[in-house]
Amino acid sequence: KSLKIGLIPADGIGKEVIPAAREALEAVLREDCDAALFGSVSSPSRKVTGYTSPIVALRKELDLYANIRPVIAVPANPAEKPSVDMVVVRENTECLYVKQEVIINTENGREARATRLITERASKRIGKMAFEIALGRPRKQVTIIHKSNVLSITDGLFRESVRAVPKLPEVNGRYDGVKIEEQIVDSAVYRLFREPQIYDVIVAPNLYGDILSDAAAALVGSLGLVPSVNAGDKFVMGEPVHGSAPDIEGKGIANPLAAIRSAALMLRHLGYDKGADRIDNAVNEVIREGRVATPDLGGKSHTNEVVEATQSP
Amino acid sequence: KSLKIGLIPADGIGKEVIPAAREALEAVLREDCDAALFGSVSSPSRKVTGYTSPIVALRKELDLYANIRPVIAVPANPAEKPSVDMVVVRENTECLYVKQEVIINTENGREARATRLITERASKRIGKMAFEIALGRPRKQVTIIHKSNVLSITDGLFRESVRAVPKLPEVNGRYDGVKIEEQIVDSAVYRLFREPQIYDVIVAPNLYGDILSDAAAALVGSLGLVPSVNAGDKFVMGEPVHGSAPDIEGKGIANPLAAIRSAALMLRHLGYDKGADRIDNAVNEVIREGRVATPDLGGKSHTNEVVEATQSP
Ligand SMILES: CC(C)[C@H](C(=O)O)[C@@H](O)C(=O)O
Ligand SMILES: CC(C)[C@H](C(=O)O)[C@@H](O)C(=O)O
Repeated sequence: KSLKIGLIPADGIGKEVIPAAREALEAVLREDCDAALFGSVSSPSRKVTGYTSPIVALRKELDLYANIRPVIAVPANPAEKPSVDMVVVRENTECLYVKQEVIINTENGREARATRLITERASKRIGKMAFEIALGRPRKQVTIIHKSNVLSITDGLFRESVRAVPKLPEVNGRYDGVKIEEQIVDSAVYRLFREPQIYDVIVAPNLYGDILSDAAAALVGSLGLVPSVNAGDKFVMGEPVHGSAPDIEGKGIANPLAAIRSAALMLRHLGYDKGADRIDNAVNEVIREGRVATPDLGGKSHTNEVVEATQSP
Repeated sequence: KSLKIGLIPADGIGKEVIPAAREALEAVLREDCDAALFGSVSSPSRKVTGYTSPIVALRKELDLYANIRPVIAVPANPAEKPSVDMVVVRENTECLYVKQEVIINTENGREARATRLITERASKRIGKMAFEIALGRPRKQVTIIHKSNVLSITDGLFRESVRAVPKLPEVNGRYDGVKIEEQIVDSAVYRLFREPQIYDVIVAPNLYGDILSDAAAALVGSLGLVPSVNAGDKFVMGEPVHGSAPDIEGKGIANPLAAIRSAALMLRHLGYDKGADRIDNAVNEVIREGRVATPDLGGKSHTNEVVEATQSP
């Protein structure tokens, strides 16, 4: 099978990190496209009514309903267990991201309303994805994030739909060995910092997943290390969790590791485990050595030096 | 002027920490009621459609529109600057907390929708509160939290309304010396953990403020240390930021310091600065000494031992 992978550097440091990940991809496959790799895009700095972020539009357009974000601290000794080892499985199509917003004028000033949509269908499919990922991990635990003490109907539906997944007839008992936990979103963030080891797979509605994955990134040293894939049933798009970082754009110091790991994650999702392992091992080795590191990790290296380090055996 | 303060222990460890704070209050004033002190309340563990948390109802009923949550790390040496010193000013009446939720059956399963309300009026009044608090602090900086790259209309309105506060005619230039910053909520949480010193006063819509204040609590060692007041124009209600902690309820080991500090914060809000200072100094001294500490802080003390320690000079 030949793979076709589109590259979407977009803007900001996306233009700097995607070429880096491209080299990693080309090293493991001959380029030919069934997936895409997205860089990052700057948000408008002033209010633009009706603005839609290109990444949000792509997720929706391609029905990439799962945003999978593994957050792992690379241990100094490869034989050791990582102190942080979790996967955030973020629902990627609904919640406040449906972008149904209205504004009206009243005698007391303007009033704006946004719709938060949670469907049983989307909650179940993201739940299935989370259980499937948990099944492939040693701890086999899924933690559902919600705020049903306030949003009893929407988050109540999310929580209940995910909980129902193991009992679905088509699932046929497959997830019976997976343990289900839950956490209210505010306390989830608190505990993430105090006891990150309580988490294995986290499944969350869109906005909570967005916040939790950035919070988790803080635990492993830098957003510049955390990869993601946006996955649907037919297409997958790799995307570093970091943004376009306008403050460092053009300086050649963006950390390319999140983009490179996103390429690996994408390959893994497509079944190319060997290629993914090769990339991941090279990245972990560079992190472990610590000799070559960009400023976000406290180093002085440039993007291209990090890329070179991942390529030399 | 005589003060009347209601005590609402509610349930869970609320019943244990409020009596503790009551002693602190009684020590500084003769009891007689213009304010209230709320403990904590357990959320239902199963789905209860239409459930309204009593604290959410109280905030709305009494129009306590500002939830003020100072998060300060007590430095070992009282002459030193605290490494974390911020105030989260959380809008307390709208956002997803308006609890307008509906659910319908469709051929693809159930679909639930919640309304997120942001008004110019509420955003301006919470903005004013934030600027007023910033004015009384050495750094005089307000950071607006939003997600206007996705919620361009609702969060756009919040951001714009807060930004407009210093230019309001009735404000009359009073806030001209206050610096305005802003952060997208996901990146705000990330930076909170990496560089907490970038924050002074944070102003946020309800849910982001909820999450950010729990996140900030993780920075100072325990939720059991962080106080809050729910403030309106006519009434103020102290409330520890922690919940009812059913896991430790009845063990006598709940940290009473958040409740005691909430009492002090309430007094300060009512203009009783001397009483507030006395309580705060006693609490800071107990934390600094570290001899008496509940399990959340790594100690072995009981609630009453901590209360006693705050009372002995
Ligand atoms: C850029 C923004 C729209 C996006 C999101 O909120 O999903 C980003 O924060 C992310 O996590 O990929
Ligand atoms: C108990 C819950 C409704 C409440 C909230 O979300 O406001 C709590 O988390 C808080 O921060 O006071």
